[in-house]
Amino acid sequence: MVQASDFAFSGLHIPGNTSNAVGSRVTPVSVTQIPGLNTLGISMVRIDYAPWGINSLHTHPRATEILIVIEGSLEVGFVTSNPENRHITKILKKGDVFVFPVGLIHYQRNIGYGNAVAIAALSSQNPGVITIANTIFGSKPDISTDLLAKAFQVDKSIVWQLQTKF
Amino acid sequence: MVQASDFAFSGLHIPGNTSNAVGSRVTPVSVTQIPGLNTLGISMVRIDYAPWGINSLHTHPRATEILIVIEGSLEVGFVTSNPENRHITKILKKGDVFVFPVGLIHYQRNIGYGNAVAIAALSSQNPGVITIANTIFGSKPDISTDLLAKAFQVDKSIVWQLQTKF
Amino acid sequence: MVQASDFAFSGLHIPGNTSNAVGSRVTPVSVTQIPGLNTLGISMVRIDYAPWGINSLHTHPRATEILIVIEGSLEVGFVTSNPENRHITKILKKGDVFVFPVGLIHYQRNIGYGNAVAIAALSSQNPGVITIANTIFGSKPDISTDLLAKAFQVDKSIVWQLQTKF
Amino acid sequence: MVQASDFAFSGLHIPGNTSNAVGSRVTPVSVTQIPGLNTLGISMVRIDYAPWGINSLHTHPRATEILIVIEGSLEVGFVTSNPENRHITKILKKGDVFVFPVGLIHYQRNIGYGNAVAIAALSSQNPGVITIANTIFGSKPDISTDLLAKAFQVDKSIVWQLQTKF
Amino acid sequence: MVQASDFAFSGLHIPGNTSNAVGSRVTPVSVTQIPGLNTLGISMVRIDYAPWGINSLHTHPRATEILIVIEGSLEVGFVTSNPENRHITKILKKGDVFVFPVGLIHYQRNIGYGNAVAIAALSSQNPGVITIANTIFGSKPDISTDLLAKAFQVDKSIVWQLQTKF
Amino acid sequence: MVQASDFAFSGLHIPGNTSNAVGSRVTPVSVTQIPGLNTLGISMVRIDYAPWGINSLHTHPRATEILIVIEGSLEVGFVTSNPENRHITKILKKGDVFVFPVGLIHYQRNIGYGNAVAIAALSSQNPGVITIANTIFGSKPDISTDLLAKAFQVDKSIVWQLQTKF
Repeated sequence: MVQASDFAFSGLHIPGNTSNAVGSRVTPVSVTQIPGLNTLGISMVRIDYAPWGINSLHTHPRATEILIVIEGSLEVGFVTSNPENRHITKILKKGDVFVFPVGLIHYQRNIGYGNAVAIAALSSQNPGVITIANTIFGSKPDISTDLLAKAFQVDKSIVWQLQTKF
Repeated sequence: MVQASDFAFSGLHIPGNTSNAVGSRVTPVSVTQIPGLNTLGISMVRIDYAPWGINSLHTHPRATEILIVIEGSLEVGFVTSNPENRHITKILKKGDVFVFPVGLIHYQRNIGYGNAVAIAALSSQNPGVITIANTIFGSKPDISTDLLAKAFQVDKSIVWQLQTKF
Repeated sequence: MVQASDFAFSGLHIPGNTSNAVGSRVTPVSVTQIPGLNTLGISMVRIDYAPWGINSLHTHPRATEILIVIEGSLEVGFVTSNPENRHITKILKKGDVFVFPVGLIHYQRNIGYGNAVAIAALSSQNPGVITIANTIFGSKPDISTDLLAKAFQVDKSIVWQLQTKF
Repeated sequence: MVQASDFAFSGLHIPGNTSNAVGSRVTPVSVTQIPGLNTLGISMVRIDYAPWGINSLHTHPRATEILIVIEGSLEVGFVTSNPENRHITKILKKGDVFVFPVGLIHYQRNIGYGNAVAIAALSSQNPGVITIANTIFGSKPDISTDLLAKAFQVDKSIVWQLQTKF
Repeated sequence: MVQASDFAFSGLHIPGNTSNAVGSRVTPVSVTQIPGLNTLGISMVRIDYAPWGINSLHTHPRATEILIVIEGSLEVGFVTSNPENRHITKILKKGDVFVFPVGLIHYQRNIGYGNAVAIAALSSQNPGVITIANTIFGSKPDISTDLLAKAFQVDKSIVWQLQTKF
Repeated sequence: MVQASDFAFSGLHIPGNTSNAVGSRVTPVSVTQIPGLNTLGISMVRIDYAPWGINSLHTHPRATEILIVIEGSLEVGFVTSNPENRHITKILKKGDVFVFPVGLIHYQRNIGYGNAVAIAALSSQNPGVITIANTIFGSKPDISTDLLAKAFQVDKSIVWQLQTKF
């Protein structure tokens, strides 16, 4: 039977427990947290940023994102696809809203000395997240160092250095 | 050319200018405000509630809604379709999240003595809003009083009374 | 194995057994009646109207409807979404066809002294029906009388009167 | 501005003017006849059958069809895709409903000495119709007789005979 | 757990085992062969043609097809829907690409004295194939000879002849 | 009027003119090259690989890809989304087929001393390509060096080195 608890989630005013290595915490509210979202094509996320913390370069393979700043100031940006690779960027203050189109690489950065908080919504109940650095330099098993050196046109020693971080 | 301004909207921390007759203000950020949202299937809205104010019974013909309480406490609810017409309701505090499935009639009510604020996202860049009371008793031109009296199984004098309000 | 019976339904020339309180009977043929309709995105319904009977104000949360009058004459209408709330209405005679766009509130009324019959199709195998009066004044449990009085801007005694009818 | 005439079509109780060579007349009500149907994903059609007339083998490239018999009796059928090619068939009487899944080849035949009439709805505002015989033997320009003879594994003289008919 | 074998298929450089009666072999790689394709909306097929062999008139009820010639030369064509029934045709050499829109009847023919090979992709993980001749003259059970004679406007003896071939 | 040239593209057996810095050439056949593909949800691409050349890490924001090796041997791989970041990889020989799900980061590498060739199809007429290295280190204007240093957890001097390459 339909129950209110299938459509609700409590406590998103409290940031998640663990801050990641780059100074942000992402607390998702998608179909895993709210079973009633299944097939309904939307989900939500809270993002907390330490001072100068970033929500690192990532994509959502199945969703567009719309974000509002609740507290603090953020630099946000996305890059368009080949061949232009235009970097679209903007400084957002409290109450500003920004859109990251489906599948494009994007990021946010806290540009203040205090904490920052954003609420974002995504156009899928199961949007997926691909953090570029983790995916490329921290996959299990590793992508071959040779291939990465060629892809990024740098010496293998630099790739090794990157691979040890993720 | 792609520009940041096509993907941005400023000032959603400030409620809209006009409070409606039932004590709420809705400030939408959809494809009208952010042209870059076109075809991307998502939008956002800020809702402000005066003490005991309501965001009256309404539906979105083309979108599911996910809502988070930013300030205050809200009673929220939706009613399932025929034949059950189950009323699913919950009290939300700051940081609580709730989902209103596409096309179902729903509402929110501020249940505190202070203001309340919510941010909601919708799974369409152009979700539409149908406020039940305005649509039924305030359409232009009127739906016939006879028909409404039959639909609501009350005397025509009561329908007239309702029609004068909208 | 695929069988003809999974794609067929018999007897829609006979109206359903029970006429509702407002003088109409709706006999649906959707995925519940025809299992083969699953995922195919269409369904059908027969509507019978007693003299002056109405198919009361309702919406389909997941479908557009196209209707043809088989017998009698109908007044039909729908109301567009906010802020216009335009009431689009027309008198249909036998053989006339009309469209009710997805999610909009609509109705039909028999405007003759004899019975009327319509066949309608809907753009979903599971369109859902939300009868406005039943949903708002007859949900289980009730929506609070206070909230309804505010939503419709009338005295609570009128809301009570309405709630006893559904 | 939204107008009732954009959502309406009159006179579908009268069959179309011209009966085709196989004893049927199809009168469509799709986005060409009702502009308001655009993007709404549904349309309607009236089919008239002379005694023993057929609505010949055809497919709709973009729609499932649901059909109700209004008058007379019809033999209906569709054939499933390779490799089964199962012929699913049924006799329909007045008031019986049948479904033809998207893209499958199907037909109806009047199996009585009087006229028959059906109303069908399709899950697209622009479903398209491909009559197999006309398409294969009557295309402009012709498909080569050689190729058709091979496809149907018959003598070219038989293909010529068929090509002269369409 | 996700495994490479769920996303892979080996050996499509070797044509399928059995050549059909009209001189072609079709080797599909869809969700049956690659389980990981489920819901991803694409599939592939290899087509081998004996000299003057044809891939007979057929439709895909749920997919558009894009084809590239790998070896040899092909005549390809499709026919548009009613009422135009335009036959769009082209000679393709090695490296040429052609598109067959969803649901339209199409074919390819090897127009050389050697073998020909094409690779095609389809916009569904489960596109379906309906070979017109097999479906119409070889369904199980048969479509009635009477009906087919009327549909193709030829003598029943010709229909019998066709039905014995499939 | 519908014309064959709107559905055709010639010469995909010849690789594109310019090989990129990592030893591959991509020749797309999408809606830009074939106007008739519009709305049909599929496109094709030829990829040529110099010995040990790579088609560098990239995503398609709007399409799943299915690839067949026409000549040579390829190592292919994709990485799943957070938190697993599983690297799914396989060696493909001539005639082997592999799938890259929508939005996931993937690559191919020629693992032989001769040239390699693949044909791939994508589930959109306009799939988009985002080459990770170019997008992150070669966007116009640059993403800030500070932010990239934090995202990849390396010294800014390494980021500068990477930014000069793209």
